[in-house]
Amino acid sequence: MADPILVVGSVALDDVRTPFGAVREAFGGSATYFGLAARCFAPVRLVAVVGEDFPAAHRALLERSGIDIGGLEVAPGRCFRWGGEYGYDLNTRTTLFTELNVFEHFHPKVPAAWRDTPVVFLGNIHPELQGEVLDQMRDPRLVALDTMNLWIEIARPALLAVLRRIHLLIVNDSEARELSGTPNLIQAGQALRSMGPRIVVIKKGEHGAMAFSEDGIFACAALPLEEVRDPTGAGDTFAGGLVGGLASTPKLTPAALRRGIALGTVMASFTVQDFGTERLLRITSEDVRTRSESLRQLTQFEPFDPALSKGGSLAL
Amino acid sequence: MADPILVVGSVALDDVRTPFGAVREAFGGSATYFGLAARCFAPVRLVAVVGEDFPAAHRALLERSGIDIGGLEVAPGRCFRWGGEYGYDLNTRTTLFTELNVFEHFHPKVPAAWRDTPVVFLGNIHPELQGEVLDQMRDPRLVALDTMNLWIEIARPALLAVLRRIHLLIVNDSEARELSGTPNLIQAGQALRSMGPRIVVIKKGEHGAMAFSEDGIFACAALPLEEVRDPTGAGDTFAGGLVGGLASTPKLTPAALRRGIALGTVMASFTVQDFGTERLLRITSEDVRTRSESLRQLTQFEPFDPALSKGGSLAL
Repeated sequence: MADPILVVGSVALDDVRTPFGAVREAFGGSATYFGLAARCFAPVRLVAVVGEDFPAAHRALLERSGIDIGGLEVAPGRCFRWGGEYGYDLNTRTTLFTELNVFEHFHPKVPAAWRDTPVVFLGNIHPELQGEVLDQMRDPRLVALDTMNLWIEIARPALLAVLRRIHLLIVNDSEARELSGTPNLIQAGQALRSMGPRIVVIKKGEHGAMAFSEDGIFACAALPLEEVRDPTGAGDTFAGGLVGGLASTPKLTPAALRRGIALGTVMASFTVQDFGTERLLRITSEDVRTRSESLRQLTQFEPFDPALSKGGSLAL
Repeated sequence: MADPILVVGSVALDDVRTPFGAVREAFGGSATYFGLAARCFAPVRLVAVVGEDFPAAHRALLERSGIDIGGLEVAPGRCFRWGGEYGYDLNTRTTLFTELNVFEHFHPKVPAAWRDTPVVFLGNIHPELQGEVLDQMRDPRLVALDTMNLWIEIARPALLAVLRRIHLLIVNDSEARELSGTPNLIQAGQALRSMGPRIVVIKKGEHGAMAFSEDGIFACAALPLEEVRDPTGAGDTFAGGLVGGLASTPKLTPAALRRGIALGTVMASFTVQDFGTERLLRITSEDVRTRSESLRQLTQFEPFDPALSKGGSLAL
């Protein structure tokens, strides 16, 4: 039986434009994407804030998904809104607007009955708020955290403080380089571990992901996708698969970590294939199994055969 | 017994500056790096041109390495020289100067006794010269080719013509996107195959490499290196390991291709750890075996356990 996961993050309405289309006021946010992925593997408890304009259909969708929304606060005002545009190769994203709205004065309140939740995911919000969540929890066995360049730049001391309180840091490659101050990703991963988290996972988009832990380094390829329509939410979906996988395993072994990262990779591959949460809402357990196996086969090769080389010393 | 490989490319003197040091007139060139890697797995026959100033020590090194330099022409004038500088993160390279010298009027002449060589590597030279080499060969079983942005831009028709005559194309990610005209690497790989080569290998530097063939897609991670001192020659060394591995296997099976790419990855990992050819000259067969096994372990994870997910349809 999987442990429940408490997730704190944004529930948002997103305007997204990519070379392949556009959506307005799509259901999004870090907690939304995380929850919809993680709920495939473990019970999810959501702490977030929405405005009075939060569509009833989105609330109904969360309820139908089995996510417990007992921590979803409705505050006076409008929902958090974000607008972004992706360039030709989908690797560059421009934020067109950010309307904080109800998020501006948000302080996460963990319902009393949820304070013993054993697994916690701190979505990408201000590191001080992430710390406030941990203040309300009683000794979780696994705390994972996501962050972004903005907090590295404007709230570094608060971020460093919360990093000392977590087990698993999930960042993308540019964030890893910026936070560690080194361009070499391998050095960056090790440097981030020395800041607190036992495990550091670096996401590299189309190039996959890497994990750094006491087990050494694990490299996970991305699934080769000919059609990527909208990368929004890929990172949070990845975290949902990873933390969901870890919550469903009693011990955080090296094998569980590797399999969790593979699950995160698989879940993210669904998200990017359609706009918003569309593809993620249509997956089956068999889809997850099939893609996991494709991912495993993708990198297999036979051991080195010494008969191939001329043997002995090749030194000159 | 491995098939011999005929390599045509540059033998050069390189000035290189990276954040970790600098060298002047280091022994380099595409044929040099390729040959020094490939000779670990198969006999190598080199066709290239040098000037009258080619250092005797470099010639002696090639001879000691077992590379057959029966096709190394000495022309009046000076050796080909290249100068480059790498930025902070080693991902950006600026060419400081290119002195063609003896290369300017070079037309590769394959010695008569070598025209039946079964495996051919066409290093990064003008595609018309690559075609001239193939005109001199009798039905090689495997022809591999490397190219660069310059030829894609100024000699596209000649490049497209020679692509129809080869089996294996080796390019980096930016070249693949430029030549295919698509930003999606998976689409790019497939598009390049439709231009002629049965197999397309895309190199992604620190992110590894991908192969496209009738076997589908193979993704190979890069070895995680904390110290990269000079990326010069990494691509040619990769090609040397890959083509060397294929030459030592009688049939071009999917398994042989995957193992070849792993060998290329391993060989390139040595090259980048020191300036010029230094590290490559000190490797042993045991080094190659050890790194191959590390590379294999790097991406392993256990198959998906359906018990992890809630099972059945997750669709909402």
